[in-house]
Amino acid sequence: MEKRPVKPFWWKNGLFIIDQRKLPEKEIIVKLDTLKKVYDAIKKLKVRGAPLIGCISAYGVVVSFLENEKLPIEKLKKEIEKDIKLLKKTRPTAYNLFYALDRMEKIIKNAKNFTKEQLKKRLLEEAEKIYKEDLEACYKIGENGEKLIKDGMNILTHCNAGGLATTGFGTALAPIYVAKEKGKKIHVYVDETRPVLQGARLTCWELEKNRISYTLICDNMAGFLMSRGLIDIVIVGADRVARNGDIANKIGTYSLAVLANYHKIPFYVAVPFSTFDFNIEDGSQIPIEERDQNEIKKMNGKYICPKKSKVFNPAFDITPNYLITGFITERGILKPEEIKNLGG
Amino acid sequence: MEKRPVKPFWWKNGLFIIDQRKLPEKEIIVKLDTLKKVYDAIKKLKVRGAPLIGCISAYGVVVSFLENEKLPIEKLKKEIEKDIKLLKKTRPTAYNLFYALDRMEKIIKNAKNFTKEQLKKRLLEEAEKIYKEDLEACYKIGENGEKLIKDGMNILTHCNAGGLATTGFGTALAPIYVAKEKGKKIHVYVDETRPVLQGARLTCWELEKNRISYTLICDNMAGFLMSRGLIDIVIVGADRVARNGDIANKIGTYSLAVLANYHKIPFYVAVPFSTFDFNIEDGSQIPIEERDQNEIKKMNGKYICPKKSKVFNPAFDITPNYLITGFITERGILKPEEIKNLGG
Repeated sequence: MEKRPVKPFWWKNGLFIIDQRKLPEKEIIVKLDTLKKVYDAIKKLKVRGAPLIGCISAYGVVVSFLENEKLPIEKLKKEIEKDIKLLKKTRPTAYNLFYALDRMEKIIKNAKNFTKEQLKKRLLEEAEKIYKEDLEACYKIGENGEKLIKDGMNILTHCNAGGLATTGFGTALAPIYVAKEKGKKIHVYVDETRPVLQGARLTCWELEKNRISYTLICDNMAGFLMSRGLIDIVIVGADRVARNGDIANKIGTYSLAVLANYHKIPFYVAVPFSTFDFNIEDGSQIPIEERDQNEIKKMNGKYICPKKSKVFNPAFDITPNYLITGFITERGILKPEEIKNLGG
Repeated sequence: MEKRPVKPFWWKNGLFIIDQRKLPEKEIIVKLDTLKKVYDAIKKLKVRGAPLIGCISAYGVVVSFLENEKLPIEKLKKEIEKDIKLLKKTRPTAYNLFYALDRMEKIIKNAKNFTKEQLKKRLLEEAEKIYKEDLEACYKIGENGEKLIKDGMNILTHCNAGGLATTGFGTALAPIYVAKEKGKKIHVYVDETRPVLQGARLTCWELEKNRISYTLICDNMAGFLMSRGLIDIVIVGADRVARNGDIANKIGTYSLAVLANYHKIPFYVAVPFSTFDFNIEDGSQIPIEERDQNEIKKMNGKYICPKKSKVFNPAFDITPNYLITGFITERGILKPEEIKNLGG
């Protein structure tokens, strides 16, 4: 399969994205032509999903180059390095952000005798490489994961780990796209994923677009469905994986993993290698982003609770390795304990 | 404690309720002066919560009397019996509806030589009795349950099993109100409870009103909180309890019970005896209401998913007896296996 199921961004003499906050109501295209716009797009979830954040931040470095192009080369490099530091502050949990920005930073560091033109070329090449590697990795995740999906299966997924969360093919949804392509009859249950509703807004949107049979549920219904034998397999993505196989993923993933374990349902995590953080031993070292209280308190502009209510809004939770059946990666299906042997 | 923490309804020459769909934004009082209005109020969740539904339906029978008062007595009784049948069709899961309406029906059946005046008096008396029994039962649930709550405890609750779900004192929240009255320092975590958000809208509203410390969370965060040791006890209500101690309660309860079990956190169900259905052996016999898809698909009038999305919206789930630590009732704390000895 070459065609991307969805196209969340593209580069055409500049960086263009679909503003995911407006989906599924409107498909609004935004040009990110300043570093500030790139920063805001990531921070405010116009783009989200660990692999996509990585890719957009890499192109963001090219945007920084273009914005500062008129400066003398050494000053230009300093400015870009400052911007890289800034981009690293957008979101603390997704590892792909650091993975991609570290690669872009290395280009700057190694650009000792480069002309501006050479530097620009190398930065754009590296961003494109990150993009193409992700697209390729996700497609292989799809091919490898598809083998786990039998004809007639019901698959539960959480949040959006689809094309919109990556460069276009998805992680958790990739095996589903490949299974559909191979003619398997499958059905997807989609957790709406409060508070930002990435499941309802984004996963439903892309499954609808790709004519995959699905049913939207509230997050608190997953256990009930499992108890009725309606779920055969759970596949989610991840924002960061530690050496021991603990993962950080969208809040609610941990509850799902416990429920799957209780009902003896296989629980898989689909991720490209760019999500593995070989620098940390376990999940306790992954920082968990807490987001604005109003993400929970307001819906479509109106309060759903008393204005004074105190809320807790962690964007992610940690799922320990022993609740994970396996990792679906571009290099095959891995057991949690196999991860540490592969890198770092 | 005599004062009701909240006052979800009252009778004053007619039946008045607070329209709970408008809370917490507005406190709108509605007079239910026709059977149709009573029917709609229950059906459309203007009043909800098993004990309150029972009580309102009992007063609804008095409303039916008043509406048909001019008919000859035998015709009047026939009309009321028809209305009782109609009210029983509003919601299938909550047992208190049938419990209360059966009691009202018995008054009609036994009213062989009654004048209209006598019949009216007996119906009103019976409705008041149902009301006062519930108030008393809930207060005793509070006193009995309070002993389970230690100073400094963090309590998790789901949906609204508070004053607004009963005649005014609550079931799951009753022990919390009593604990607060006794000076215990407690904190409540409130599941927002999708799709209708009874936790965010109603439980937060009444805890705020009664100055009880609380934090609102999304339903998918409960497991994460448990894993961090932030929850000491879970207390929920129930819509129906079978002889073997299986319960039906708001969708999401089952997931919470599994999570509590996994984390070795006590899981209690607070219910008055009017919620026990001694006619059924186990939870498999409890009908589960499926509600309108738009309860999930729309929020404050706007779609949160593609318009075409198919959704599944069960309003309740079944929690099996072996996941329940105990029942907090007006007669004390019961083990699930003790229930069948007590009635029927």
